[in-house]
Amino acid sequence: MATRKDRAKETLRKIEGLAAGVVTQIQKGKNPRVEVPLRTLANVRFNAKRKIIELGGDKQERLFFNVAQAKKFMQTFLVAGACKELLEAGKTTSIRDLYYMTKHTLGDTKQNTFDEQVESDPIIEDLEVTVDALREELHLFANRKGLMVGPMTIVDSGDAIDLRRQGSGGWGVPSIVEPEVIAFGKTEAEYVLLVEKEAVWSRLNEDKYWRTHKCMLIHGGGQPPRGVRRLVQRMHTELKLPVYVLVDNDPWGFYIYSVVKQGSINLAYESMRMAVPSARFLGISSSDPGRYKIPENVSIKMDDTDHRRVKQMLDYPWFQKKEWRRELEGMVRTGRKYEIEALSRLGISYITEEYLPKKIRDKDWLE
Amino acid sequence: MATRKDRAKETLRKIEGLAAGVVTQIQKGKNPRVEVPLRTLANVRFNAKRKIIELGGDKQERLFFNVAQAKKFMQTFLVAGACKELLEAGKTTSIRDLYYMTKHTLGDTKQNTFDEQVESDPIIEDLEVTVDALREELHLFANRKGLMVGPMTIVDSGDAIDLRRQGSGGWGVPSIVEPEVIAFGKTEAEYVLLVEKEAVWSRLNEDKYWRTHKCMLIHGGGQPPRGVRRLVQRMHTELKLPVYVLVDNDPWGFYIYSVVKQGSINLAYESMRMAVPSARFLGISSSDPGRYKIPENVSIKMDDTDHRRVKQMLDYPWFQKKEWRRELEGMVRTGRKYEIEALSRLGISYITEEYLPKKIRDKDWLE
Repeated sequence: MATRKDRAKETLRKIEGLAAGVVTQIQKGKNPRVEVPLRTLANVRFNAKRKIIELGGDKQERLFFNVAQAKKFMQTFLVAGACKELLEAGKTTSIRDLYYMTKHTLGDTKQNTFDEQVESDPIIEDLEVTVDALREELHLFANRKGLMVGPMTIVDSGDAIDLRRQGSGGWGVPSIVEPEVIAFGKTEAEYVLLVEKEAVWSRLNEDKYWRTHKCMLIHGGGQPPRGVRRLVQRMHTELKLPVYVLVDNDPWGFYIYSVVKQGSINLAYESMRMAVPSARFLGISSSDPGRYKIPENVSIKMDDTDHRRVKQMLDYPWFQKKEWRRELEGMVRTGRKYEIEALSRLGISYITEEYLPKKIRDKDWLE
Repeated sequence: MATRKDRAKETLRKIEGLAAGVVTQIQKGKNPRVEVPLRTLANVRFNAKRKIIELGGDKQERLFFNVAQAKKFMQTFLVAGACKELLEAGKTTSIRDLYYMTKHTLGDTKQNTFDEQVESDPIIEDLEVTVDALREELHLFANRKGLMVGPMTIVDSGDAIDLRRQGSGGWGVPSIVEPEVIAFGKTEAEYVLLVEKEAVWSRLNEDKYWRTHKCMLIHGGGQPPRGVRRLVQRMHTELKLPVYVLVDNDPWGFYIYSVVKQGSINLAYESMRMAVPSARFLGISSSDPGRYKIPENVSIKMDDTDHRRVKQMLDYPWFQKKEWRRELEGMVRTGRKYEIEALSRLGISYITEEYLPKKIRDKDWLE
């Protein structure tokens, strides 16, 4: 396996290649340019065979001698330079730090290289796709959320951590979970259960659901951040663990499931290493209230934003599966949505003792 | 030390006492009532001797036979009943779960016991002050944020967790950190460093600042949640560790420091077990940009909301210390604020290798 140093060297080589290309253009008397793959909805497509959302082939030129593009051209190399510095020092930092590292005033002008982080973040993504290096490989981390426990020993930066003995706390899932940092040790886990919410995760952890049912229990605090998605994908591909997703019965919850399974528009260039095409939607499904006798007064009325979001999702080419449409149309028809916590109405531990075991036993999930 | 069961028994006794009081009133033919201490700004005062914000003695009556109060009266007992159920089952749950546990439709009406969680949350706080039991003692947890690493072994629900070997991940600080759940094992820590932001915490953890400088490194993801505040206070009082706070140089950062030190208006009834009156403000202080040569172009302009917040804070009786006013007035004078991450402009590891060690060596802090 490549060490962290090997991988840093490889990324450095890519960044230097980008710079060398520009130098060659200058020596030939050409207008220096970089070609940046387009990260737009129009340049995204669903790969039906691989079952993931992928980036298309459209690119955008970024020229140095071009009034509209010169600033972005400079910013691209500022960010690349800062990443080079991080890689050479063997350190990682946040994208907010990177913004500050690269921010300065140009000469005697009042012009700043960057005025806001909203300018540097897309440049990072541009750099990722341009040199084909992931954010993690550029030694940058995003804000993170998410905790994991379960029957596994994990080796994090050389520390062996027994996830069977994490008490009520849990191990915080880092943003960078590549094999050079995180390795899987001994495990008895038979599947991965990804839940949307921290409070639900805490309830399941208190009941030690993961011990009784031999699963890795992980949450992503809403839409899971890159670290959580990547770790789930690694457990799936490397350890052959099936992945189950438990989210709210609302458009946002179902969208989380779709992102875990197929990837997202935004990070389409990362689907290959983030998505788990066989991930299963466990609930809360639109048929659950009837099947599990969840009283209607614990439901929440769908509002305009919810309805608009469903409409938008039904328009995506990757939301055309019959079973998926039934879920979303079910919400529209009843005008009702249900949070996972609504199950508490049926008892504190109903979710751990009845709902989840029955769902899995009956293979009552969507794919 | 009291076990978890002992403490649950004690809380059950308090809840039953509340109910018994009402039964007695009924038997005497009186209008059933409960007296709830008022949690308002007017009923909060700064105890100059203890140096914490405390709740005053004002109370509000809640009567059963009173059109305006009957619903709240009922809600109080619904919540108390659900907590009793949790305590008897030896389980804990989220305040969102509790909302669903207690939500139902009244008889054949269209009236719900609770329509929204914003109705049940204040009732929980009412119950806390009325029966003098903390939320944690009622077996309820709030959403949590925050991670900790450092030279200490912690025992969480019987699991010994070595916080010296948590890799890049860290141990997630739970919401309930009372001694029955969390015990302190062997430690070499000499102080506690509470940082505002997760990204800064990750940077410090990567540089193993806590190992070189023998400190417990903890963050609260912005305004620290109850679990983090309580854990910091316990480390301070039980282990005699001084507490240092590192926040952004803006009104919100300084307010976080004030809450850690003196408590908050909202949770004034909890200050005794949350506040650390000797906590030290390490930075980013208004004099740092000059002293540490932080370039002005990494600062952010104070906006109207910032200015309004400063004005509000300067009006609080517990913000009258000269040094505190100088900090806030400094922000107003320069019209500039600085994030912790701005230090990255001076180098990736400037914060761990220069800024923090110098601050502590020079005793360059506020109290």
